Amino acid sequence: VTAKAPIDFYFDLSSPYGCLASQKIEALAHRHDRSVEWHPILLGVVFKKTGTGPLTEIPLKGEYSKRDFLRSARFHGLPQFEMPARFPIPTQVPARLLTWVKRVAPGRMVPATKAFFHAYFYKHVDISDPEHAVALLAPFGIEGHAAHAALADPAVKDALRAEVDGAIERGVFGSPYFIVDGEPFWGLDRLDQLERWLVTGGF
Amino acid sequence: VTAKAPIDFYFDLSSPYGCLASQKIEALAHRHDRSVEWHPILLGVVFKKTGTGPLTEIPLKGEYSKRDFLRSARFHGLPQFEMPARFPIPTQVPARLLTWVKRVAPGRMVPATKAFFHAYFYKHVDISDPEHAVALLAPFGIEGHAAHAALADPAVKDALRAEVDGAIERGVFGSPYFIVDGEPFWGLDRLDQLERWLVTGGF
Repeated sequence: VTAKAPIDFYFDLSSPYGCLASQKIEALAHRHDRSVEWHPILLGVVFKKTGTGPLTEIPLKGEYSKRDFLRSARFHGLPQFEMPARFPIPTQVPARLLTWVKRVAPGRMVPATKAFFHAYFYKHVDISDPEHAVALLAPFGIEGHAAHAALADPAVKDALRAEVDGAIERGVFGSPYFIVDGEPFWGLDRLDQLERWLVTGGF
Repeated sequence: VTAKAPIDFYFDLSSPYGCLASQKIEALAHRHDRSVEWHPILLGVVFKKTGTGPLTEIPLKGEYSKRDFLRSARFHGLPQFEMPARFPIPTQVPARLLTWVKRVAPGRMVPATKAFFHAYFYKHVDISDPEHAVALLAPFGIEGHAAHAALADPAVKDALRAEVDGAIERGVFGSPYFIVDGEPFWGLDRLDQLERWLVTGGF
């Protein structure tokens, strides 16, 4: 029996649709005997490549998107959040922490990711602040001193940079972005196509 | 009995997702006793307002989108098209013709719209060419001489301009874009939310 390849899930921690997708992807994957490989990326870096910018700052589209984030949460049966007053935020700090946790304590990386998303979107904690971000890892037994040291470690910065560069090389330009057996799916609203892909093996 | 308000359907004739949505929206509306009001618009004008541009010209996103147009057609059980070699095209000519047909022969406006979408995406006819566009109206009994006269009529240009300005005032920034009882839905991939909105009266 050959194990099926994992679903690659790319996300930015400041992405509302990424936050919603993070609450759906595991159950979806589980229905089809897949695992999920979680990849924190930095949309700010991606936007330099694509020449685009944050959705909410585009005239007309920005106002619509704020409405659509919340309606999409309700549509998918997920808890609705209020938009954080500070949005978007730079996500280097929490993404570096996740990159490090993924290496030193891989089993805690997914719970830590969910804690960051929850804190930012549902509790309006500024996770770009190292003190806040590090504190959110404590419940998972991740010691503050070690986490702060990781944030200052050039090897951790390099690892995240390599992750983002690798994502761009694979064509990733948004969040959430999924790759299943080589097939790319962008957006919370492609989970339906992604699931059919898993069922049919391609259509 | 009060008649339910129509679904407003805004589209650009050079929009792949608009073409796909044009093949889905009537059956959806019919299931919920709604009519559809078809509004040709010009994305080129909208893009000046939003500061954005054609999806297919954005690095990374452009390549993905071409794949997604075709996969979305298959996902929705619609005939797949090949991308026209000339894409996008300016759509003033067919949009002006539809604006005029809507006024002088309203019952033929929707069939004419479908004929334009079909010719451009499935037959690769350049519908920005007045000769081609006018010829496509002949099967509906719309005489070529009158159609050419309409294209030269400043009142028709003004009517389309007013339609586009009105769309932007209502927040329309893309194609397809729907408004149902004041609620906006952007994209082929929001037909699911639109339908639930019709079923539930809002969620």
